[in-house]
Amino acid sequence: MIKVTIWNEYKGQEKEEVQRVNPGGIHKTIEGFLKREPDMVIRTAILDDEECGLTQEVIDDTDVLIWWGHAYHKEVPDHIVDRVVKAVQKGMGFIPLHSSHLAKPFTRLMGTTCTLKWRDGDREGLWTVLPFHPIAQGIPEKIVLPEEEMYGEPFDIPKPDEQIFLGWFSGGEVFRSGCLWNRGYGKIFYFQPGHETNPSYSNEHIQRIILNGVRYVCPQIRRERIDCPHIPLD
Amino acid sequence: MIKVTIWNEYKGQEKEEVQRVNPGGIHKTIEGFLKREPDMVIRTAILDDEECGLTQEVIDDTDVLIWWGHAYHKEVPDHIVDRVVKAVQKGMGFIPLHSSHLAKPFTRLMGTTCTLKWRDGDREGLWTVLPFHPIAQGIPEKIVLPEEEMYGEPFDIPKPDEQIFLGWFSGGEVFRSGCLWNRGYGKIFYFQPGHETNPSYSNEHIQRIILNGVRYVCPQIRRERIDCPHIPLD
Amino acid sequence: MIKVTIWNEYKGQEKEEVQRVNPGGIHKTIEGFLKREPDMVIRTAILDDEECGLTQEVIDDTDVLIWWGHAYHKEVPDHIVDRVVKAVQKGMGFIPLHSSHLAKPFTRLMGTTCTLKWRDGDREGLWTVLPFHPIAQGIPEKIVLPEEEMYGEPFDIPKPDEQIFLGWFSGGEVFRSGCLWNRGYGKIFYFQPGHETNPSYSNEHIQRIILNGVRYVCPQIRRERIDCPHIPLD
Amino acid sequence: MIKVTIWNEYKGQEKEEVQRVNPGGIHKTIEGFLKREPDMVIRTAILDDEECGLTQEVIDDTDVLIWWGHAYHKEVPDHIVDRVVKAVQKGMGFIPLHSSHLAKPFTRLMGTTCTLKWRDGDREGLWTVLPFHPIAQGIPEKIVLPEEEMYGEPFDIPKPDEQIFLGWFSGGEVFRSGCLWNRGYGKIFYFQPGHETNPSYSNEHIQRIILNGVRYVCPQIRRERIDCPHIPLD
Repeated sequence: MIKVTIWNEYKGQEKEEVQRVNPGGIHKTIEGFLKREPDMVIRTAILDDEECGLTQEVIDDTDVLIWWGHAYHKEVPDHIVDRVVKAVQKGMGFIPLHSSHLAKPFTRLMGTTCTLKWRDGDREGLWTVLPFHPIAQGIPEKIVLPEEEMYGEPFDIPKPDEQIFLGWFSGGEVFRSGCLWNRGYGKIFYFQPGHETNPSYSNEHIQRIILNGVRYVCPQIRRERIDCPHIPLD
Repeated sequence: MIKVTIWNEYKGQEKEEVQRVNPGGIHKTIEGFLKREPDMVIRTAILDDEECGLTQEVIDDTDVLIWWGHAYHKEVPDHIVDRVVKAVQKGMGFIPLHSSHLAKPFTRLMGTTCTLKWRDGDREGLWTVLPFHPIAQGIPEKIVLPEEEMYGEPFDIPKPDEQIFLGWFSGGEVFRSGCLWNRGYGKIFYFQPGHETNPSYSNEHIQRIILNGVRYVCPQIRRERIDCPHIPLD
Repeated sequence: MIKVTIWNEYKGQEKEEVQRVNPGGIHKTIEGFLKREPDMVIRTAILDDEECGLTQEVIDDTDVLIWWGHAYHKEVPDHIVDRVVKAVQKGMGFIPLHSSHLAKPFTRLMGTTCTLKWRDGDREGLWTVLPFHPIAQGIPEKIVLPEEEMYGEPFDIPKPDEQIFLGWFSGGEVFRSGCLWNRGYGKIFYFQPGHETNPSYSNEHIQRIILNGVRYVCPQIRRERIDCPHIPLD
Repeated sequence: MIKVTIWNEYKGQEKEEVQRVNPGGIHKTIEGFLKREPDMVIRTAILDDEECGLTQEVIDDTDVLIWWGHAYHKEVPDHIVDRVVKAVQKGMGFIPLHSSHLAKPFTRLMGTTCTLKWRDGDREGLWTVLPFHPIAQGIPEKIVLPEEEMYGEPFDIPKPDEQIFLGWFSGGEVFRSGCLWNRGYGKIFYFQPGHETNPSYSNEHIQRIILNGVRYVCPQIRRERIDCPHIPLD
């Protein structure tokens, strides 16, 4: 079984314009399609939960952590951020979505500012650049998202280990929309679509990409200790 | 001095629609702005020259080879292709432009098919993804090319060592428009703009990118021998 | 089922010093441990077979091609090399072993000379650099090969997409011993151990690495497209 | 002029065994060979200086920051670490040496633990893997360091953008000894030699590598942008 925890800041998502496309919040929409998978166990957590819903016990019991944050990144306490970062370094898969490009665990793992351009209310074409990659299986060459926030280059990230998707926006911008990095034993898949008032997480292809992503970043092994051992001569 | 050789298949470029934007052929347009550089010596060569204008003497006297081919890739003899590939492996810089994605020396150095999508008569926005890279110095974040052929993903190339520019096309496509690879001691800069009937090589920013590219791929050192030496124990 | 074809030049391997460690030739040793896998179907082919044993039918029926060549690289006809290269670009996995660093299909896929240093009769320590990689699963941090040919840097290869193993040699050299590249839809895993007179392919860890490699480069999908489609406007 | 600041924790380097090879501390040894360069201006700073000698004014006036720390990483205050990390993201070059693999600014920029194996008192062979790289110019294929601490794989770092040097140790280990990464507008060159009681910084080749490194990571441009601009439609 793959144990998935979906974290969503939720705060502010009570608004009608969000509830219309994401009833109950973004974590509920994502849970909705992940829980159909027979080999996945889904847990959700939000900012207002105690310890953000991310106690050490929850993290230790998580194979893949999906993260959606936007306006309240700073309210996630640093000790929670440390916990997430260390878990990724030991092998936990991590999928920051959309505006989580500025989430503290993501920028800590990247070492860059992760800044970008943005404009609300655009139309996106999402292109598959690496059609052979496991995350791209079953995905058409181009996905059209009629309503999506524009994210544009330059995106201040380290060179991705794999560049799987590129985004095209009708206003004239391009974006590295789906990127993979390894950090320690952990895999990180940043995926751009998913503004809170747009129905991208109800798109079957976007759902399939997130599903593929969960399977791909799920760790084969995790490490217990991370230190610098002294090695005596044989 | 940087010794630059501009190779152009030329054949077919006598047409009025080409001559209008590239009088004398594409190599003449490129020569026109390169020869203003006081530290560059420019030579041109075309398909119909003896040995394609690329004798061993010319290649040995070339620091950077710019290449423009389109409809006559197959007419370049294999021994000339071998000569170019070996020179790159020893350090010669190589800049295949536009439709040279299918030029034999380029596909030989890449090891992939280098195929892509295309459509004539589009509008391009060229974005700088790595603003700190030497090839991007003096280049605005976005260059608009009102008339340019669309090249679209998936582009079948090995993972670039550096992804400097991305192209946006009004018809909905994106493209990895400026890519760098090392092969042996040689640097290769593929750059997408430059359809023969479009005035892209007269655009000041495109000229600056090609100029920066020539300086960047110009070798610091070249190697003489490429073999597998037997190393006795000390 | 994973369909594996093991190609071995074999010529010259009738010598007693080879037969002692590889009875019947290197392909027989490799077949010996691969055929224990219930989900693998193994075929072997040698240089002296008609069409090198690599007809189009055989290649079309191969998921992963393992290659061992040394002194007779030049005797592999170019049309066979083309066939292998095209199959890799369409998705066939390819595992060139040891002295196959100079095999024609490998250098064609790399675009570099693939030259290196060498010295017969050394001792190797093979280190795992990426312990989380699927090819490293079940492999100890260090494997000692008491007898192995030294291969040393600089190794003239394109930057690997993944650098999984590094080799240490008692004579003082280091080597990038296990490297991955993508070319088109195909994955390539170069693995250094396996001089014909050394028993490396009888080492349980080396066998496990090759097994893991076969599973890793086995294609999820294969694709026929090797052309440039014209895309009309919607 | 290239403005270089050499930071050294210094604390503990009053010991005779350090002073013997690094009179006045490691920063003095490095300053000694850097200040011979006519185009470099050198400044030094140590842990016990006010603000660690790294006030905002000093950082703003620094093109390249060389860093040597070992036993007192934790004593560098977080606001100084933030200052260094932000400066690198804006373009300042950064050269963490040897035991600075655990320095807070380095691990913050990497996003990994940067742990490794170690053993005091070994002999190192340092190999050039990318002989064409600017940092390798004038450097022999192999440098022998008769006394150097062993650092061994697995080294928990993100995939280097360039892998320039590999280390061989007589006890049987290998190490990625010279690595480059980009983070934002800044370049980072980690270089392994330089245990405090070994004379590596007096070796002419090691000095040349550090000199080449300073020139290579020196920024061409620096950029202030660390926000996310809203882009209205044209």
